[in-house]
Amino acid sequence: MSRREPRTDASWLSGIHCVLETLRGKPGSAKELLVAAGSRGSEVEEITRLAREAGARVRYVDRRELDLVARGARHQGVALRASFHEGESLDGLLARFPAEARQGLIIVALDQIQDPHNLGAIARSAVNLGARALILPERRSAPVTGAVVSASAGAIQKLPVVNVVNLAQTLERLKQEGFWVYGADAAGRPAWDAVFNTPLVLVIGSEGCGMRPLVASLCDEVVSIPQAAAGVESLNASCAASVLLYEAARQVNKKP
Amino acid sequence: MSRREPRTDASWLSGIHCVLETLRGKPGSAKELLVAAGSRGSEVEEITRLAREAGARVRYVDRRELDLVARGARHQGVALRASFHEGESLDGLLARFPAEARQGLIIVALDQIQDPHNLGAIARSAVNLGARALILPERRSAPVTGAVVSASAGAIQKLPVVNVVNLAQTLERLKQEGFWVYGADAAGRPAWDAVFNTPLVLVIGSEGCGMRPLVASLCDEVVSIPQAAAGVESLNASCAASVLLYEAARQVNKKP
Repeated sequence: MSRREPRTDASWLSGIHCVLETLRGKPGSAKELLVAAGSRGSEVEEITRLAREAGARVRYVDRRELDLVARGARHQGVALRASFHEGESLDGLLARFPAEARQGLIIVALDQIQDPHNLGAIARSAVNLGARALILPERRSAPVTGAVVSASAGAIQKLPVVNVVNLAQTLERLKQEGFWVYGADAAGRPAWDAVFNTPLVLVIGSEGCGMRPLVASLCDEVVSIPQAAAGVESLNASCAASVLLYEAARQVNKKP
Repeated sequence: MSRREPRTDASWLSGIHCVLETLRGKPGSAKELLVAAGSRGSEVEEITRLAREAGARVRYVDRRELDLVARGARHQGVALRASFHEGESLDGLLARFPAEARQGLIIVALDQIQDPHNLGAIARSAVNLGARALILPERRSAPVTGAVVSASAGAIQKLPVVNVVNLAQTLERLKQEGFWVYGADAAGRPAWDAVFNTPLVLVIGSEGCGMRPLVASLCDEVVSIPQAAAGVESLNASCAASVLLYEAARQVNKKP
């Protein structure tokens, strides 16, 4: 490690879309913006303006420096060093959604999802389908990195992310706060027969093992996506999350 | 290209799961099986037996030969050279499902999906959620390769795949045969308000551009997955396909 560039909890994001979503959604995370000399366009201008407003250092550099920082990814002339470790606290999240404003509220909690692409894809679907926050246990979960932001097409930057030490305790707290907890498991009741009450937390288990038993035991209801045939490989985690979020949104938006 | 190993339309698949699904689902595609010397276990025995029954050559080789063939993928001691170009014809598909047996039948057609991982993920969801065949245009679609089979966790080997020259003509033919054609597009009617009649074809457009206009014009109904907010990145193709297949399955299995 060189002295000039001490290791920090920040990492590089590149590409206009990811950088713009980050500066819009989480300006406080921005540390430093690199812009390729000669880059133009209204989006680059907006990125530069937002970065300055966020207090990030802005440097115009040779395109080759961006190539290095982006490690082969398509950077479109911009890269942002951002901190991904400034998650929101559970108290902060609950304050953001006071009790009288929780009708229809949907939150996603991931029990040890370890693949960055799955985490990013789930975040993208969560934003698209109306979930308003993401809860991740600190241990054995993929951390939010540039790769995750890219895999989410920038969407994860639009979601408050709450890192919790103990997911089970967090779910208990949310239940006390009036949330309904739904967990995804193949042994559960078909999602289309379940009633999704809000505010709700949807728990998606890890790719290989599903929810841990303690987490599953805290669910008000365990729901499944009915498989067409026995012995069929299950849906991947992001497809399963999408289907269950869709079913919840369907029930919230349209009475059956 | 060496003379000893002429280029063919076959490629290598590795890993017990993918090889087993291929030998079970599409035995006719199997050309040659490599087994690492010393590999044991009931699954390896079944793979060897199925490969012999399928008329494939079986060779016991040094594990390093498998490492080469699998190109870094986890091979678990088995690799199969299989042909992926023996798609089914549309006539063959229609014969497989005669008119009196099409109640509840769901087929997926992909309009120029070019990413092998998306193709594999869609196939996995399609099998899981009850679709019974996959229609791919010959041009501008990712071909079914080992990477696609792996991305589908072997699931694509359980589906008849029909390669068609002209997707629009194929959809017209299927409509004449009594199929309902539903296409996915953000401008469509919310999926939960649509009525999914069967037999049906669900058309998913390409990652960047969606369905081509001619294809879209042939749909009996264009359906969308309602987005929670404007300006949100859309679902990726496999998540969108999963949600729409779920909605179709929900309506087929449970009256609203």
